[in-house]
Amino acid sequence: MPLAHAEEVAAHLIDAMVAGHAFAGLARVPAIIEQLANKGPGGPIRLTGQTGISATIDGADVNGYVVSLFAADKAIEIAQVSGIAVVGASNTWFSGRLAYYVERIARAGLIAMHTANTTARVAPFGGAERILGTNPIAFAFPCDGDPVVLDIGTSAVTWGEVLLRQATGRSLDAGTAVDAQGRVTTDPTAALEGAFLTWGGARGSCLAFAAQILGILAGSDPVLNETRNSGMFFLALKPDLLMPAAAFRERVASLREAVRASRPAAGHTAVRVPGDGSLRARRDGGDRDVEIDPAVHRRLLELVAGAA
Amino acid sequence: MPLAHAEEVAAHLIDAMVAGHAFAGLARVPAIIEQLANKGPGGPIRLTGQTGISATIDGADVNGYVVSLFAADKAIEIAQVSGIAVVGASNTWFSGRLAYYVERIARAGLIAMHTANTTARVAPFGGAERILGTNPIAFAFPCDGDPVVLDIGTSAVTWGEVLLRQATGRSLDAGTAVDAQGRVTTDPTAALEGAFLTWGGARGSCLAFAAQILGILAGSDPVLNETRNSGMFFLALKPDLLMPAAAFRERVASLREAVRASRPAAGHTAVRVPGDGSLRARRDGGDRDVEIDPAVHRRLLELVAGAA
Repeated sequence: MPLAHAEEVAAHLIDAMVAGHAFAGLARVPAIIEQLANKGPGGPIRLTGQTGISATIDGADVNGYVVSLFAADKAIEIAQVSGIAVVGASNTWFSGRLAYYVERIARAGLIAMHTANTTARVAPFGGAERILGTNPIAFAFPCDGDPVVLDIGTSAVTWGEVLLRQATGRSLDAGTAVDAQGRVTTDPTAALEGAFLTWGGARGSCLAFAAQILGILAGSDPVLNETRNSGMFFLALKPDLLMPAAAFRERVASLREAVRASRPAAGHTAVRVPGDGSLRARRDGGDRDVEIDPAVHRRLLELVAGAA
Repeated sequence: MPLAHAEEVAAHLIDAMVAGHAFAGLARVPAIIEQLANKGPGGPIRLTGQTGISATIDGADVNGYVVSLFAADKAIEIAQVSGIAVVGASNTWFSGRLAYYVERIARAGLIAMHTANTTARVAPFGGAERILGTNPIAFAFPCDGDPVVLDIGTSAVTWGEVLLRQATGRSLDAGTAVDAQGRVTTDPTAALEGAFLTWGGARGSCLAFAAQILGILAGSDPVLNETRNSGMFFLALKPDLLMPAAAFRERVASLREAVRASRPAAGHTAVRVPGDGSLRARRDGGDRDVEIDPAVHRRLLELVAGAA
């Protein structure tokens, strides 16, 4: 891929590792290289439409890390001027941690909401067919100190986790998948032939639909049978549309302090606001080298040797 | 309350009953009357700010059914002109089913997102103190035929359900509450002295935070110790900001048809899109009288007799 794109992907992967999400870090490189080998680097990303409050982006089959960064920066640019922006990007694929993009928007002083829909691997509640993606949803809010960042998937299990359990001969957790006949299963191979379930039953299914439909709005197909046409939806808005920005940041901080100071439940040692874990990992890890899993390191060296 | 307000509340409660949500219907009347007796009917609802893309509303302690309808209609009015609207309303209380308001916005051709934060009764994930509300989140999307409407709570159990189980001597489901010492409990009385848990653990907690912070943005306190200062957040946007509206409605309909036509999992008879249950109840019930629980009916007659 072009050097500029590679630098953006690398920054995302390194940040994931520093923030304590090794599965979203250098471990992703082999899959990214495999996709590049299949698809090529993609064409130039194109702005296909823009108003004072919105933009549409054709990802030109470039990977989602690069396209989502482009879309997030476009949302920031528009919202800084008009107070609000909705941006849709499509014709792209996997974009890593949604937290990365919403945090960037919140550090620009804006409230962010972001969804992505992904290849159909998940059955809607009560169903046995792959129709929805593992569809993550993320929010971030400016706050005194660091922003509050929320990022959740809407499927009971991720594709990567199922592949890992299949490779290591471990069963899935109960209630996370059905087989091709629609019967509950904990066998990873049967789950890959059937469908994953939504997280939290009917309620997770509702959220998976929301991300799926916002993906359609952003230009994806209604049901995604290929990785290449994910729909990335971004909303960015200035808090001062509804209240003074400084007062908002101060009030969000007071909620965060109330939570951090609250009593933990039995079996817990601290109560954390969403995103606190990543913040702490970054802070504690700032002076340390990033640790790489030996198997990932070995695979990266093989890839370098293969390319040489 | 003023007749115009009473008519709006009645329309909401009757719609809830017709759509199959009896708990959100006439069963709410005694609680609404009790709140009115405590608080009075409230002052005139005031628009405290408006831009081409936003509005802020002081609910003046009027009940949430009336204030949220005012806010939803303001969001529709602004978004019809500019393409998008964010509206925050505060200084109000309980607003019933969020689905009612987002469906109204979607029937005006707009995509809707709506959150409300409520009295602190829920502990954040890992915590034992009441900090978050039962904080519902709702979306609605225009679609060929009826809109797709999603409406979920973010707590493992509702306040009404805990009161009902306490009154009828039944235990709570496992994993829905902690007692005042932060230990898991299924005793409704202990749960009321402790805290409810979020639905789906850490992920539900993330969503409860999102609704809480959007409530702060709409003007609520960071932690709600009284019912009177809920924050209602509304977003309305025209699909044609990102794609032609007719194509969007058609593509959402094709997702809905794919789901309705898909194979059910073992133990399920049909796969439903969120909101299908309410649509079917309305359609099937359209020619029938609405059934009222005898205990609710008796209580309503007592209230009428008391007022005479």
